[in-house]
Amino acid sequence: MKIYNLCFLGFGNVGRALVSLLVEKREEMRESYGIEWRIKGVATRRMGWLVHADGFDVEMLLEGGAVSNIKPPAPTDVHEWLRAASADVLFETTSLDPFTGQPGTEHIRAALEHGAHVITANKGPIVHAYEELSQLALKQGRRFMFEATVADCLPVFSMFRECLPTARVLGFRAVLNSTTSIIIEEMERGRTFEEGVRRAQELGVTETEPGYDVDGWDSAVKVCAMARVLMRAPLKLEEVLREGIRNLDSKRIRSARDAGHPIKLVSRAQASQGRVKASVRPEQVAPDDPLAMASGTSLLIYFELDVLPGLTMMAYSPNLKSTAYGLLADFINAVKEEK
Amino acid sequence: MKIYNLCFLGFGNVGRALVSLLVEKREEMRESYGIEWRIKGVATRRMGWLVHADGFDVEMLLEGGAVSNIKPPAPTDVHEWLRAASADVLFETTSLDPFTGQPGTEHIRAALEHGAHVITANKGPIVHAYEELSQLALKQGRRFMFEATVADCLPVFSMFRECLPTARVLGFRAVLNSTTSIIIEEMERGRTFEEGVRRAQELGVTETEPGYDVDGWDSAVKVCAMARVLMRAPLKLEEVLREGIRNLDSKRIRSARDAGHPIKLVSRAQASQGRVKASVRPEQVAPDDPLAMASGTSLLIYFELDVLPGLTMMAYSPNLKSTAYGLLADFINAVKEEK
Repeated sequence: MKIYNLCFLGFGNVGRALVSLLVEKREEMRESYGIEWRIKGVATRRMGWLVHADGFDVEMLLEGGAVSNIKPPAPTDVHEWLRAASADVLFETTSLDPFTGQPGTEHIRAALEHGAHVITANKGPIVHAYEELSQLALKQGRRFMFEATVADCLPVFSMFRECLPTARVLGFRAVLNSTTSIIIEEMERGRTFEEGVRRAQELGVTETEPGYDVDGWDSAVKVCAMARVLMRAPLKLEEVLREGIRNLDSKRIRSARDAGHPIKLVSRAQASQGRVKASVRPEQVAPDDPLAMASGTSLLIYFELDVLPGLTMMAYSPNLKSTAYGLLADFINAVKEEK
Repeated sequence: MKIYNLCFLGFGNVGRALVSLLVEKREEMRESYGIEWRIKGVATRRMGWLVHADGFDVEMLLEGGAVSNIKPPAPTDVHEWLRAASADVLFETTSLDPFTGQPGTEHIRAALEHGAHVITANKGPIVHAYEELSQLALKQGRRFMFEATVADCLPVFSMFRECLPTARVLGFRAVLNSTTSIIIEEMERGRTFEEGVRRAQELGVTETEPGYDVDGWDSAVKVCAMARVLMRAPLKLEEVLREGIRNLDSKRIRSARDAGHPIKLVSRAQASQGRVKASVRPEQVAPDDPLAMASGTSLLIYFELDVLPGLTMMAYSPNLKSTAYGLLADFINAVKEEK
């Protein structure tokens, strides 16, 4: 039985949901996988770099009452913090910067150099530093995992890695952003764009900066992550043809819906002549297209494979626990064969 | 690099498609997984127990021109055949007997006892002997795998095994049989039940005995296999409430379709108070239900998990290559960590 020292960098809704899920699954992790854990580090902009030598009290942590108990000097940066916490695993859940991938990339690099596995829900680093961070992880004998970055807990990356050997992804079409689905559906019901944004915020599905959702950045970053990992194509963010939903006309949205071919923000990538072409833009979806199923907060990916015309995966009404489970699954998968 | 001696028991369309796929993926299997193979045994009722000491010529095998080249006496049963072929892997693709699981179970037991991995597309043995065969495989240090038994190459079993640790399957709803979908859709278009059966046979999707499809046996066997493996419930075939499509009235089918809630043969299992209740029967499906997407030969499963309200997987228009890939993936996954 190994006790893993866990560190949380970023501790918002997803981080909290993960702690609750770790508690819920504690016994099964111990019995089925021989995995025990304690939370030794938590860091946020507001709280600073906290470390608890024996592991934080989970209840207090969830109530926001965490304080460091280590001897001074207190850590002042990510390196000192990881060292002080003897981190075995870093959960990186800081918010997305699609243009630089920072500070996530810096955190992940530091943790891999320290010798910890890294599990992230942050898409930025995949797009901007996937090759570098993967190489570093390999060199360090640690894992760099990111299942929760795309479609919550759908096992998009692990399914291809673990279950579908030699299958080739020729392309995919997907609905990868629920904020835009919600806004479009509110507008179908006659509400304004702004009311749609508020509705998505109430549901808690928007990025910290909603512009990243409505202008297609969030989807474009996910397309790049999938193209990089699943299609081995070094697709850059600026190569994704990108059109958001900000300029969609209410009348057009309603008439498309009335004609039975509603508009969705569709993400695509397709291999063609040795290159991958990708786009994110509003498209009308036919009623017999599998993408038609992606409504509300549901996320859907339709993969075209060389061995199957269409492998479709959908996360129907995912919730915070679902995202947290994406991180938990990565943690267990990263360490289950270590002992 | 290990050279695996492959044996095929049953050599119909799926077996042939698997041989073609093995050839297509030969180089990638060698380079990415260090796996090499040769086909040393092929057995069918018509051909008998054939063995080729150096591996059959693949082209000749696909053209039906295989003959044994080993010294007499020729093998006269599965035990002698596996031994003569020094089988490392058995691909068992004989046809389904839902009521006894034979002779598949006997073949699989023999192969595991011989010391071979077993990959099967035959559902019968899962329902009738899953626990026994799994235990035997464990004892022998070999794998007993059966991904292709449910929904072709959708990684139903391996996804839960490899990607979704600690996730609990609370229930599922599914369309698992394409013959019945085809028949119902033909009847929606005004054709007769018999014309529907013929159409499904033309498409090559029916069981050897089409009654197993139309009376719901094929689906019920799949429900049992999934309940056993994914929900750890010893559900018996006779415990599945089962109603086929033979007595469906054309008028009812058409009016359901016209009302936008078409009839499909829906398979269900649900955990409730420590037991699993299961059914296979014609149900009307609402247009916003993910199951509505399962038309034509497509197969779809909607899993209710404790960590996600609905994880949906769909095989859209699978073909023979897809089924064969289910077997190939099992083979690679069974042996990839052996070296």
